[in-house]
Amino acid sequence: MKRSMQFFNKPKIIGVSSIAGPKESNGSINEFIETKLNDDMFGEDTFEKAESKMLYTVIDKSIKNANRTEKEIDAIVAGDLLNQIISSTFAARNFSTGYLGIYNACATFSESLILGATLVDGGYMDNVICASSSHFSSAERQYRYPLELGSTRPPQSQWTVTGAGASVISSEGKGPIITGATVGKIVDFGITDANNMGAAMAPAACDTLFTHFKDFNLEANDYDLIITGDLGALGSRIFKDLMWEKGYDVEGQHVDCGELVYNICEQEYQGGSGAGCSALVFNSYLYNRLYNGSYRKILLMATGALLSSVSTQQGDSIPAIAHAVVIEGE
Amino acid sequence: MKRSMQFFNKPKIIGVSSIAGPKESNGSINEFIETKLNDDMFGEDTFEKAESKMLYTVIDKSIKNANRTEKEIDAIVAGDLLNQIISSTFAARNFSTGYLGIYNACATFSESLILGATLVDGGYMDNVICASSSHFSSAERQYRYPLELGSTRPPQSQWTVTGAGASVISSEGKGPIITGATVGKIVDFGITDANNMGAAMAPAACDTLFTHFKDFNLEANDYDLIITGDLGALGSRIFKDLMWEKGYDVEGQHVDCGELVYNICEQEYQGGSGAGCSALVFNSYLYNRLYNGSYRKILLMATGALLSSVSTQQGDSIPAIAHAVVIEGE
Repeated sequence: MKRSMQFFNKPKIIGVSSIAGPKESNGSINEFIETKLNDDMFGEDTFEKAESKMLYTVIDKSIKNANRTEKEIDAIVAGDLLNQIISSTFAARNFSTGYLGIYNACATFSESLILGATLVDGGYMDNVICASSSHFSSAERQYRYPLELGSTRPPQSQWTVTGAGASVISSEGKGPIITGATVGKIVDFGITDANNMGAAMAPAACDTLFTHFKDFNLEANDYDLIITGDLGALGSRIFKDLMWEKGYDVEGQHVDCGELVYNICEQEYQGGSGAGCSALVFNSYLYNRLYNGSYRKILLMATGALLSSVSTQQGDSIPAIAHAVVIEGE
Repeated sequence: MKRSMQFFNKPKIIGVSSIAGPKESNGSINEFIETKLNDDMFGEDTFEKAESKMLYTVIDKSIKNANRTEKEIDAIVAGDLLNQIISSTFAARNFSTGYLGIYNACATFSESLILGATLVDGGYMDNVICASSSHFSSAERQYRYPLELGSTRPPQSQWTVTGAGASVISSEGKGPIITGATVGKIVDFGITDANNMGAAMAPAACDTLFTHFKDFNLEANDYDLIITGDLGALGSRIFKDLMWEKGYDVEGQHVDCGELVYNICEQEYQGGSGAGCSALVFNSYLYNRLYNGSYRKILLMATGALLSSVSTQQGDSIPAIAHAVVIEGE
């Protein structure tokens, strides 16, 4: 089984763009976010349309930031949390490029980087945009309860990030290089609480990182940063404990995008989540740090809880996945 | 813009599997279907679980039919019509392989072949399973009305295929070869009738085929068969007219999986549809014909209507896409 792959032709991330809602724009990475919204409706009449417009905005701006024109873009590889990934589809509708829709819940952004890097590294395409989004209000009413109900949130819950990010991967140009990846497999530990996704996803993150370390003969010290997508505070503790049991201490390198994205405040409990969480953090703060040389080599490992409201209602547990992408400074 | 790609390392489809519900098992391709169900519940207590079990069955059998073991499979690239592609996720949960979830509605199967061929042709993986499914009853209640309502179907409607198919793409072995592809772009002609998906998808099929012909300097005669996914009878007529306007006569080569899958009977109106439609027809009838040499070179072009019930309710039109895959006999 070959879940890990190496990219030898230096697929580079030559431009990025990020956008965030008001809450995220006031969080700990605020100075790195390109577009900060004062209103999470973004001038639209529904949350879903606002989310799609956010994704459109980062795709559009990432092309400009990469010094490319729309005609030079071969494909958009994107996904999001909404049913039938309509944020991505309706965003991509505005561009005359190829479109490959993907879905691995909150692991979608790292899945898009793996597929984008494969298409560029293999010489099949020259410029591919990888993008993902989420929106608190569209996710909340789709996965949980109508917002108007004012449901109480349990302490193990996370807060879906209102945000989006896009990266342009190219065969030519300047930027951090994607050098390898490990594709996740589905891990299901039988968690049925849709409010406790960190616990559901931690074993998947552990499986992917363990496989990654074994396949490449690496350890935590080989990375400046091992950054998970949205395990949150509780999930991160479980993840580190599971890695410890496997013989790896990742305490010194591990950070979680969900823990990072907000200022610590009671309302979000375990931190951020959503397909936009890792997309936002990567395409703002992390990209900046890689580009300016503060980080030499990081492992971006977004995690996804692959449930739907139907699977939850039918009593099924939450399958989870994590995809890891190695990104190195130029 | 590089929407077309060529595969030079001969990624081969070394084994397939197909499964169909009772209605499809009595259709025109019945003798080629591997597993024929007498009951579309397939021993499960919900339609969604039955669909997922169908997908699990074809993935499992395709591994055996390819003379591979589960350990030799690197990844499953799969998607379906259900929210958060749960049929695929819950099917893939049973395998210890990598998993890449995708979604392009009824174009999902050809999307999976493009990504699977890329992973194998580029040397990133050795054996990848590409799969897709749909189920009349799970799709109907998700996209349209509860079955219990007994809604009347308009004459332009199609019938979602209860079926699934899986292909094992490999770098080694014997079988038809994927030699090229053209990635679809989103085309939206403003159709808002969710019962008239053939009309919504025909312009996307036309755009992809026109791009394919131009990029490879080909014409309809270069193919034994140009087979669309689920345009249905009405959509197929529109598609052929649109191609005619562009200067190409595809009448002699074009067949539609949706037109092919059922015996002509009043109830299905325009024919079959669904992500399982092209997956079922390809992994039974078409594979057989390619394998035994009856077809030398075909273009499989599944088409997808990228709507959701939310986008329809919010008054949006139906974006559509078509991905084309060139498959040649060995």
